Amino acid sequence: MEMVAAAATKDAKRNGGTPEWRVTVPEGASVTVEHERCLAARAWGWLVSCVVALGAKVSGSGKRLWKIGADDPRRAVHGLKVGLALSLVSVFYYTRPLYEGVGGNAMWAIMTVVVVFEYTVGGCVYKGFNRAAATVSAGAIALGVHWVAVHAGGELEPFIRSGSVFLLASIATFSRFIPTVKARFDYGVTIFILTYSLVAVSGYRVEALLVMAQSRVCTIAIGIFMCLAVCVLVCPVWAGQELHRLTARNMDKLAGAVEACVKDYFADQPADGKQPPSDKAEGYKCVLNSKASEDSQANLARWEPAHGRFGFRHPYEQYKSVGAAMRHCAYCVEALSGCARSEIQAPHHIKQRLAGGCASVAARCALALREASSSVAAMKTSWALDLAVAEMNTAVQELQSDLRSLPSKLVEEESPAAVLDAVQLFTVTSLLIEVSTRIESVVDAVDTLASLAGFRSSDVEKDEASETETKVKQPAASDPDSYEPEKKHIEQV
Amino acid sequence: MEMVAAAATKDAKRNGGTPEWRVTVPEGASVTVEHERCLAARAWGWLVSCVVALGAKVSGSGKRLWKIGADDPRRAVHGLKVGLALSLVSVFYYTRPLYEGVGGNAMWAIMTVVVVFEYTVGGCVYKGFNRAAATVSAGAIALGVHWVAVHAGGELEPFIRSGSVFLLASIATFSRFIPTVKARFDYGVTIFILTYSLVAVSGYRVEALLVMAQSRVCTIAIGIFMCLAVCVLVCPVWAGQELHRLTARNMDKLAGAVEACVKDYFADQPADGKQPPSDKAEGYKCVLNSKASEDSQANLARWEPAHGRFGFRHPYEQYKSVGAAMRHCAYCVEALSGCARSEIQAPHHIKQRLAGGCASVAARCALALREASSSVAAMKTSWALDLAVAEMNTAVQELQSDLRSLPSKLVEEESPAAVLDAVQLFTVTSLLIEVSTRIESVVDAVDTLASLAGFRSSDVEKDEASETETKVKQPAASDPDSYEPEKKHIEQV
Repeated sequence: MEMVAAAATKDAKRNGGTPEWRVTVPEGASVTVEHERCLAARAWGWLVSCVVALGAKVSGSGKRLWKIGADDPRRAVHGLKVGLALSLVSVFYYTRPLYEGVGGNAMWAIMTVVVVFEYTVGGCVYKGFNRAAATVSAGAIALGVHWVAVHAGGELEPFIRSGSVFLLASIATFSRFIPTVKARFDYGVTIFILTYSLVAVSGYRVEALLVMAQSRVCTIAIGIFMCLAVCVLVCPVWAGQELHRLTARNMDKLAGAVEACVKDYFADQPADGKQPPSDKAEGYKCVLNSKASEDSQANLARWEPAHGRFGFRHPYEQYKSVGAAMRHCAYCVEALSGCARSEIQAPHHIKQRLAGGCASVAARCALALREASSSVAAMKTSWALDLAVAEMNTAVQELQSDLRSLPSKLVEEESPAAVLDAVQLFTVTSLLIEVSTRIESVVDAVDTLASLAGFRSSDVEKDEASETETKVKQPAASDPDSYEPEKKHIEQV
Repeated sequence: MEMVAAAATKDAKRNGGTPEWRVTVPEGASVTVEHERCLAARAWGWLVSCVVALGAKVSGSGKRLWKIGADDPRRAVHGLKVGLALSLVSVFYYTRPLYEGVGGNAMWAIMTVVVVFEYTVGGCVYKGFNRAAATVSAGAIALGVHWVAVHAGGELEPFIRSGSVFLLASIATFSRFIPTVKARFDYGVTIFILTYSLVAVSGYRVEALLVMAQSRVCTIAIGIFMCLAVCVLVCPVWAGQELHRLTARNMDKLAGAVEACVKDYFADQPADGKQPPSDKAEGYKCVLNSKASEDSQANLARWEPAHGRFGFRHPYEQYKSVGAAMRHCAYCVEALSGCARSEIQAPHHIKQRLAGGCASVAARCALALREASSSVAAMKTSWALDLAVAEMNTAVQELQSDLRSLPSKLVEEESPAAVLDAVQLFTVTSLLIEVSTRIESVVDAVDTLASLAGFRSSDVEKDEASETETKVKQPAASDPDSYEPEKKHIEQV
């Protein structure tokens, strides 16, 4: 059918645009196509194109989904973990003794798993703790009010119940606007209102309120336990580690952006005068946009138990300071990249006078950031970082003296007018110097992090290398934490 | 007792530091204080100081709470609204016919109110819609699987139930990582998993599953209806309006920051060389930090029904573009303020050569931003905005020619060395020019918003003023929306 339609179209075209609606049918006879048939062919064509479009859309969505999973396979694992936790908890429902043990309230365990299970361990602990604490406290208050309501008797009872719900819900909802409550107990407040309302109002009709409350607390505890067990034991995702990696990765991106911006600026201009920014040069945008995720990860990380190199009081707040210092630097890189790509450009031969100095500063800036990044990533302090900063400062001083001598050189060697052309170069260079100043404050923030988190010295590491090699053979002792006492000893020395 | 302790301390001091532990008691006789008594006095002192500290803390918290409420009284109103909705819905529990009508599932209505009630109408609709759609779809699928499980018989039943829960929960959880799902249906996915698990697993023990599902959908519908009614009818807070106001306010703050930064830079330096940045000059920080709230408000605003000047398809996404343009500008203001406050400053007499030009550009920049802000706030286009931009560009061109002639002037009138001192001034001026370029793109984004949202022309307004005055006397016709057809007519003309 599709072929027939195609043939009809071809015929029409061959006849110089005048549609003659004749097609060659298999019998070999030439017939005039009826109007209905043409419609049917069109409809068929439309249907086929729809199916093809749908297929393309489905395969496109499939590819996108695959990419989401392939970018970070832990996302797919997270899905399976939620499925696993729910399947495990549903066993309570199927096992009669367990089901009757909690008086038919097993449903609450399922509910708890669905709402408490989060991607990171920190999120899971945060929600689990909030849910448990809020349920217990609200339940206790509600039982107290229930006692009062029952003793107040008949007419007054609904008013006491609803009045107390009104009052507590209003106060609790208002408390969510307090920043500390919002950051740490937002979910708990919801559950508090929920539990209080349910218990206080249910008391009007349910007889054995205390038993109901008890079995509910019990099932919620089972749900939370199940969540935490699956979340921590099966490929755990730690918010603290995510924050740690994000910080190190952003520092690398910032390093790449500084280097690429300066390189792009001093590169030979293409014929049309406009060069598209390289991907690397846009790296600072990641730094600008990661405040929200840093804040939420730091918030969740504080709920996490000690794990690996991350102790109980790991200074997660300091990562926010490092992030703020990086953003402070990224603002300046943004302005630098904007000025470097502005329409009015300094002439190439004038640019060349500072090209070497600027490239050297940019390279040292990037080196300092990369050293800081690897220091954070490896959780080790290193003399290389101090050296990199010192080198950066030397390069900046050289650039500054080049910059200061440039105007008089231009006046002498070219003409006073050459100074006008150099104004844009002055701006770019000054911004690069400002960027280097801000990189120093990033390094300072990293130093503070290193001392708060007790990063080990990499020099000590080398001395211990031979020792480590022997230790690696004993799996139990190869945990980095096992060096902790030695490190403290060395620091005291 | 407290006074005794104080007297003891004074006595001790008077005796030159040697504690003699003698106090004047009311009887007038001097007695040696026993050691126990001294301890008791100390304990009492400690207790009193504790009570005082606690009192100070409570009053401090009270003041902070009061400030949170006073800053935005709608927060307190929101608390009362939640209380009201919960009290209203609890009436279902007390009224026997209503309670029995939904088969004792009235509890679900309370639960729905607690979790669906949000601060903004958009949030409420988003959660309500997600909860309703997810409950109905998950319930339908679960009933289908229930039928299969029941017909598959005994041994197989729990495996079919748990297997389907595992599969659907895994897929649904993974789907949350798709950005569109995350932005619009995140809550729906949670409720989908919750409802599916509850219905599919409950089917194993609960007899009348269909009746249970029906009454549950019914109670959830009641809860959502109650939420929406209270949220929309009692002092509604619209996410769209919040976004709208935030955008206009941020534009004003940016205007103030540009002006204040330039003013601070050219002001006479205080004796110590360092001047603290004024509050106004820090205004750009609000712009830098409001991405998260803009995104969430734009996300929620799209769920809101038409209200006031905000139509059904109001271009909330465009506010995000305006916000992005403002941030783009704020990055540059940040760099400008950083450079303006750097340690190496150009000498005052050199600064003065561009002070006038820079101040004029800064004032025009601020004017353009303020015109844009008031255009957004009033939802009116105005010729004053185009005029302000044109004036800004003229001022920029003058500054640019001043900047270009400065080096040769410095060489002629002072010495070639004076150019060195002017480098920092060049940088600040170039950045100011870059800021003005970025302000133009903010104005462009506002223009796009004006055409998408159909802002009215303020010139038309004036012509209609007399007409409006007569209309104001008829309350029904004074709604700004009632001018809509007239406006379209004028635009077509």
